Amino acid sequence: MILKRWLVGDPLKTTQASRERLTKTLALPIFSSNAISSVAYATEEILLVLVLAGTAAVVWSIPVSLAILFLVLVLTISYRQIIYEYPGGGGAYTVARSNLGDVPALVAAAALMIDYVLTVAVSVAAGVAALTSAIPSLFIHREALGLVTIFFVVMINLRGVRESGKFFAIPTYFAIGALGLMVIIGTIQSFSTAAVLSTSSPGSHGELQALTLFLVLRAFAAGCAAVTGMEVISNGVKAFRHPESKNAATTMIWMSAILATLFMGISWMAYHNGILPKVEETVVSQLARLTFGTGATYYAIQIGTTMLLVLAANSAFAGFPHLASILARDGFMPHQMATFGDRLVFSNGIIILGFFACLLIVLFQGNTHSLIPLYAIGVFVSFTLSQAGMVKRWLVKKGVHWRKKLIVNGVGAVTTGIATVIIASTKFMHGAWIVFFMVALLIFMFQAIRSHYKAVAEQVSLSRDARPPRPRRNIVIIPIGGVNRSVVRAVDYARSRAGEIRAVFVDLDPEESAKVKIQWAQWGGGVNLIALPSPYRSVLGSLLHYIEDILEKEPDTWVTVVIPEILPARWWQNILHNQRALLLKAALLFKDRVILTDVPFHLTR
Amino acid sequence: MILKRWLVGDPLKTTQASRERLTKTLALPIFSSNAISSVAYATEEILLVLVLAGTAAVVWSIPVSLAILFLVLVLTISYRQIIYEYPGGGGAYTVARSNLGDVPALVAAAALMIDYVLTVAVSVAAGVAALTSAIPSLFIHREALGLVTIFFVVMINLRGVRESGKFFAIPTYFAIGALGLMVIIGTIQSFSTAAVLSTSSPGSHGELQALTLFLVLRAFAAGCAAVTGMEVISNGVKAFRHPESKNAATTMIWMSAILATLFMGISWMAYHNGILPKVEETVVSQLARLTFGTGATYYAIQIGTTMLLVLAANSAFAGFPHLASILARDGFMPHQMATFGDRLVFSNGIIILGFFACLLIVLFQGNTHSLIPLYAIGVFVSFTLSQAGMVKRWLVKKGVHWRKKLIVNGVGAVTTGIATVIIASTKFMHGAWIVFFMVALLIFMFQAIRSHYKAVAEQVSLSRDARPPRPRRNIVIIPIGGVNRSVVRAVDYARSRAGEIRAVFVDLDPEESAKVKIQWAQWGGGVNLIALPSPYRSVLGSLLHYIEDILEKEPDTWVTVVIPEILPARWWQNILHNQRALLLKAALLFKDRVILTDVPFHLTR
Repeated sequence: MILKRWLVGDPLKTTQASRERLTKTLALPIFSSNAISSVAYATEEILLVLVLAGTAAVVWSIPVSLAILFLVLVLTISYRQIIYEYPGGGGAYTVARSNLGDVPALVAAAALMIDYVLTVAVSVAAGVAALTSAIPSLFIHREALGLVTIFFVVMINLRGVRESGKFFAIPTYFAIGALGLMVIIGTIQSFSTAAVLSTSSPGSHGELQALTLFLVLRAFAAGCAAVTGMEVISNGVKAFRHPESKNAATTMIWMSAILATLFMGISWMAYHNGILPKVEETVVSQLARLTFGTGATYYAIQIGTTMLLVLAANSAFAGFPHLASILARDGFMPHQMATFGDRLVFSNGIIILGFFACLLIVLFQGNTHSLIPLYAIGVFVSFTLSQAGMVKRWLVKKGVHWRKKLIVNGVGAVTTGIATVIIASTKFMHGAWIVFFMVALLIFMFQAIRSHYKAVAEQVSLSRDARPPRPRRNIVIIPIGGVNRSVVRAVDYARSRAGEIRAVFVDLDPEESAKVKIQWAQWGGGVNLIALPSPYRSVLGSLLHYIEDILEKEPDTWVTVVIPEILPARWWQNILHNQRALLLKAALLFKDRVILTDVPFHLTR
Repeated sequence: MILKRWLVGDPLKTTQASRERLTKTLALPIFSSNAISSVAYATEEILLVLVLAGTAAVVWSIPVSLAILFLVLVLTISYRQIIYEYPGGGGAYTVARSNLGDVPALVAAAALMIDYVLTVAVSVAAGVAALTSAIPSLFIHREALGLVTIFFVVMINLRGVRESGKFFAIPTYFAIGALGLMVIIGTIQSFSTAAVLSTSSPGSHGELQALTLFLVLRAFAAGCAAVTGMEVISNGVKAFRHPESKNAATTMIWMSAILATLFMGISWMAYHNGILPKVEETVVSQLARLTFGTGATYYAIQIGTTMLLVLAANSAFAGFPHLASILARDGFMPHQMATFGDRLVFSNGIIILGFFACLLIVLFQGNTHSLIPLYAIGVFVSFTLSQAGMVKRWLVKKGVHWRKKLIVNGVGAVTTGIATVIIASTKFMHGAWIVFFMVALLIFMFQAIRSHYKAVAEQVSLSRDARPPRPRRNIVIIPIGGVNRSVVRAVDYARSRAGEIRAVFVDLDPEESAKVKIQWAQWGGGVNLIALPSPYRSVLGSLLHYIEDILEKEPDTWVTVVIPEILPARWWQNILHNQRALLLKAALLFKDRVILTDVPFHLTR
């Protein structure tokens, strides 16, 4: 417990909850880092696809980036409408559920959950890549660095929402500033220099592919990683200070503007300077080195990028447990996901997210590029469902300016729908099928959980009829193997309430039995002692037989089995005790009117 | 339970126990197969060492075999004296304990236990080797075949002693007959043919070692595997029919005679025909092929050998659990090892032996030759301790003919002592050190267990003083989260005995609380309902606080916590329930006056 306190801090009272609300200045780093940090790898992923068709093909990175810029614009406008319409938090799940029904909502929820896990894994992997670009000797440790980072973020999050904000606000603004500086200076420089067409060899692509439309679309799909995380604000409107929706919408615009500037700047600089992806150094690192040389400013940019990406991972830790708790409240996830942890955050969700992100890091060896084909599909599925849900909403609800709003979300739905199809079809063979499989699996799980809870509710619900007659008597049985302090304690416990008590022992050896009877006369406290015959030498069998006999003869009685149990001082000593008690308990567990009570006797050595 | 019955048979009554006693004809296959079956590999192991010095060195196999024959003679005579002196079963542990004290006894016990495990592993591996010699296509499956065989033998043993006898008697006599026939015909043939000195290449020994005394002693040590198992009869005298000692002693002579004949015959035939070990075919298989050609008789010998070796493994299953139960009765092993299983055999010991034998098969890839360096040391340590114990006994006890008896056991002690030193020193680096380490570990374990049981006995023992005053009151607490049938059931159970009962719930949400109070009025059965405040939103914390409060204010009362628990119909549903109950139970487990009672509510779907 002390360790836990030290790691996650003291618990907070419920009345402190409202003070946990976020200002815009704190909300921007928490909710926007996911989207903004994508600039660290999005351009690189576009280039990685295009160079498959040779260095000349990288010219296509500019139109592809512009297409993604258009997506950012559409999403910003559409999501602002969602933020105002759902001030309680309008995640894709909520919007889809209230407008389209359960199944689309569960598709959105499953897709989002998977993408939260991927956000953590991809961001951490990319953050480690930024670090190892600056310190190449760490390259071989990137898997371990990723795991350590996730552990660190999990701990930070278990300490509560506001502290995360404080902890990350300064480094994020620092990173945005550093990257912004690079983009501004780099862009200015680019107007005074001629464009370079790189001749450096891009990794080891022996054979060139043709520059097909499919390849350009694949590059677009890879770049779509840039817009992941734009939905995070709409999920967390409630976390903003009053007026929640307005503050959230303003933060959204700031976020989009920063994202768009940095992304286009980096894409432009990479193209203009003929930068190509390398295995051991990121594109952003190459750009920073080119712009500032390998000096203090370069290191500042790399450290800033790393911190920004860690913040992005952190942002998923705000979203995932929130979504899980909403699902839990609707009965699609285990109830315990809905309970507040000590620090008013959803501890269970945080731990699960951390676990799966670690699993991905290990499975994909901490490599960003291997994870990217799985990424973004989930987000775009949920984008599309949100926008489609809003379209349905305006059609049904109408209200002020509903036609204008319908067009905005309609454009959003169509645009994200097309993008989803492009992403799914170009990435399917490269790993996206895993995501589709997982979505199906999660939906199956959600529905199994919900139908179980429904069945339970029916089974435990109290009908309006009179309560059924219940056994009124209670026979207490104390199985003993001999007479010792542990047994005497169990007898004393049983005697502390009135009722019929019987100690029973199994007669295996007449000599031993006589001894037990004599000791019982002194220590039994007047409780009846019954010796059971045991033709089969089976202690367990005789006891079971005796108890079953009572249950049969006395249909109106509970049987309480009070078991004197030795509780050893050290764990390994458990194997030396209570084996028989364990078997007895296992055998009695499913008998309807039998209730088990352990009376532990604590050993001190 | 049905599966268990089908696999291990119906339980037997205690009164049936005497009928389980064995005739000599049944005892011979059970107790002697261990020793006799060694002829299947002992000669081969001698040759494997000698050929390291070239094919000419195999002439030494004859003097080495004669030395081992001398050991058989000495052991037979010495062990007959033990059988008569200890009719209750005179294992090395018993003899050493009653004459030499605890530590030598534990050394003997540890050494024997390890050798029982090795007997199973070596015999099964050799049995599989006999099989794969006849059917070479099975060679790659030898590990799996070994595991399946052990599983099979474990099952047979869980069915009880006598059935094992019946099951194995016929095949053993068949194997002895087949091998005997081969030895007789082969030996007769050898007088009409000249000796062959093999020129066939013995595996891949590139460089020859010098034929040193050490190498000859190593060959002797390897061949000592032939006498392992000779002690088994002395451990199991009690299992024989009346007169136990006489029957056991007679069986011992039969066993030794068969062992000596077969072993010398095979060694002689191998030498005379210039047979050298091969990787994929055993020496016995080569001899059988040479004598009878690859026909029906050859296959009969191979099948017989396999069955004999499986029986040898089976023999350890009679000895190991018996030894474990004796140790358990003396407090050196967990008590549950001493209890009879359903089938009057020591089920726990059988299962443990099977497990460790499987482990060895897996670790050593089912290869006899890799296991041999670990083998025989344990047995010879226990031989030496037995004989030394008997020497001490005659010196102390004297009695009729004690001088003659002293000389017999004295020769036994010195002979086995020298053999032990030879085995330990020549095999130490090849794996025997593992055995020494394991012996030390087991002795440590035996003594830790015994000292724990002693400490427990002291702690639970009832002193002659008056019993200490015990809490006389009992407050029953029922923590509830809402009102449903599971809760009503728990309340009904609590009300079935008189006393103070309080239902408590944690007030998280005023609306919910009001609902609970209204429902309680209808369903609470008049039990007091207490609403606990929860400033930290922690249900667990509030409950713990409340219970600790009672314990503090009421030093003379038990607190019974009755927990309404949902028992799902399917295992995976457990994750959806009772998480909070589990945490509560963990937190309350070590509170002295708190007793937990689950009242399960069984779901049907």
